[in-house]
Amino acid sequence: KTGFVVAAVSGILMWLLMFVWVFGFTGGVSWGTDSKTEINLHVILMTVFMVYLQGHGAIIFRTLPSRPKIQVKLIHAGFHLSTVIAVSIGLWSAVRAHDMKGQPHFFTLHSWIGIIAIVLFYGQFLAGFFIFLLPYAPMRLRNFALPYHKFMGPLIFLTSCTAAATGMMMKALGALSGGLYEQRTAAGVTINFAALFLLIFCLTVTYLVLE
Amino acid sequence: KTGFVVAAVSGILMWLLMFVWVFGFTGGVSWGTDSKTEINLHVILMTVFMVYLQGHGAIIFRTLPSRPKIQVKLIHAGFHLSTVIAVSIGLWSAVRAHDMKGQPHFFTLHSWIGIIAIVLFYGQFLAGFFIFLLPYAPMRLRNFALPYHKFMGPLIFLTSCTAAATGMMMKALGALSGGLYEQRTAAGVTINFAALFLLIFCLTVTYLVLE
Ligand code: HEM
Ligand code: HEM
Ligand code: HEM
Ligand code: HEM
Ligand SMILES: O=C1O[C@H]([C@@H](O)CO)C(O)=C1O
Repeated sequence: KTGFVVAAVSGILMWLLMFVWVFGFTGGVSWGTDSKTEINLHVILMTVFMVYLQGHGAIIFRTLPSRPKIQVKLIHAGFHLSTVIAVSIGLWSAVRAHDMKGQPHFFTLHSWIGIIAIVLFYGQFLAGFFIFLLPYAPMRLRNFALPYHKFMGPLIFLTSCTAAATGMMMKALGALSGGLYEQRTAAGVTINFAALFLLIFCLTVTYLVLE
Repeated sequence: KTGFVVAAVSGILMWLLMFVWVFGFTGGVSWGTDSKTEINLHVILMTVFMVYLQGHGAIIFRTLPSRPKIQVKLIHAGFHLSTVIAVSIGLWSAVRAHDMKGQPHFFTLHSWIGIIAIVLFYGQFLAGFFIFLLPYAPMRLRNFALPYHKFMGPLIFLTSCTAAATGMMMKALGALSGGLYEQRTAAGVTINFAALFLLIFCLTVTYLVLE
């Protein structure tokens, strides 16, 4: 299916360009040592896990429809488990970046949308884990919960994508202030294309999940 | 249906808050007289038409399912025609805002996503107008085009919503620079809530159209 190819290609280009942005143009990642680059780990982890891996986890039941259900479930849960871990570190790194600069927390619209996405994601993971993965839940509960899980999935994913888009917008303006963005330098064009591929990836995954 | 109520309420709150933002906190609208407020007309027109009215136009076949088809079609086309006009003025006002400040055009990721949304919107309107509204198109063409029209509709809408979210992010950072955003002033909280209602509106409309 074309959709899977578009999702794979646009998703990889998105995070490749964000790697170029972070390591090529804004000083690389650090952890607790440099207030200027502390946010970069957040940028990488959120792009790769909260968008790319969450998206691929969401469509895995459609990319591998003929595999035994339990295998696909384990991959689905495994993708989302690694995202839970990575996102916790990514959130921590953003909070530290604020602390190191003496800034308060959660004042931007990006951070509001972002924290909503993260809380919903944790909730979806816990509910999915206990209801669909552990063997204890009765069939009735599984049948009852599935439509809610399928309703919340794309909603959480699109909220994550909106967080990423506003994050890229903010980061571009912050890193390219003083007229640099205007001059269409390689850095600015890189993050603009990353945002375009983010958009294509998010739309494609949404269509694949909801169709 | 709950979905229609959520869409109506969140959509109205979104543009109400953007009116408060523009007229209460950032100097109101102007046209060609003040480079600082020139962008505000863009902000208002895009929020009200490219998001709110486009969204309601998209779901009108579901909000009024029992009306004669031709009536609903005329409302759908009428909503989108007024959006075409409003968005042209809104784009013009953004371009003028750049010209008045001596800035180049289309260097931000917001403007890239925005111009893609606008071009696709124009295209969708022209195609819809000639194929579904004028009486000349043969039934075969209508049947052929409808799946593409229904595929492109939500795609254009979500691209518009992403443009609006990144626009709000940029505008908040620009208008509340120098530590004002950090202080969680009424202005910052207003645009953050506008972005939240934008998100709720966009997700609700998307689910209503795709279900
Ligand atoms: C996709 C999922 C993302 C989520 C859930 C998310 C979440 C968050 C949260 C909750 C904060 C607030 C930290 C605090 O207030 O202490 C934050 C901060 C930040 N994020 Fe993200 N983020 C995401 C993606 C991105 C991306 C892709 C970028 C940049 C390319 C980015 C750039 C930033 C920046 C610069 C800050 C610091 C300023 C602020 O508080 O808004 N984020 N993020
Ligand atoms: C935050 C983490 C999670 C997210 C964002 C998420 C998202 C989704 C999405 C979008 C779907 C719809 C897939 C489709 O229709 O093709 C889905 C289905 C499903 N998820 Fe999750 N999920 C999460 C965690 C989990 C966990 C931990 C489990 C436990 C195994 C789980 C089990 C399932 C099952 C059984 C389905 C139904 C598949 C089917 O029969 O079509 N999910 N999930
Ligand atoms: C929803 C649809 C929207 C579309 C399609 C759109 C489109 C555009 C385009 C094409 C430009 C570039 C003009 C130029 O380069 O000369 C632009 C600029 C701008 N827009 Fe929007 N916009 C939208 C919503 C918004 C919103 C809601 C806001 C603010 C709340 C906003 C704030 C701005 C600002 C501050 C600029 C000037 C800086 C720049 O070029 O990025 N826009 N917009
Ligand atoms: C840029 C402008 C337009 C956009 C964004 C747009 C969007 C949409 C969307 C999202 C749908 C799906 C509605 C649903 O499934 O409930 C749709 C359906 C439709 N649109 Fe448009 N449209 C546009 C212009 C037009 C125009 C000008 C016409 C001419 C009358 C038109 C005629 C139709 C028809 C006949 C349907 C099928 C309704 C049905 O039978 O379910 N559209 N459009
Ligand atoms: O554990 C599961 O629950 C759902 C379904 O069986 C409940 O309706 C599903 O697909 C599983 O794999």
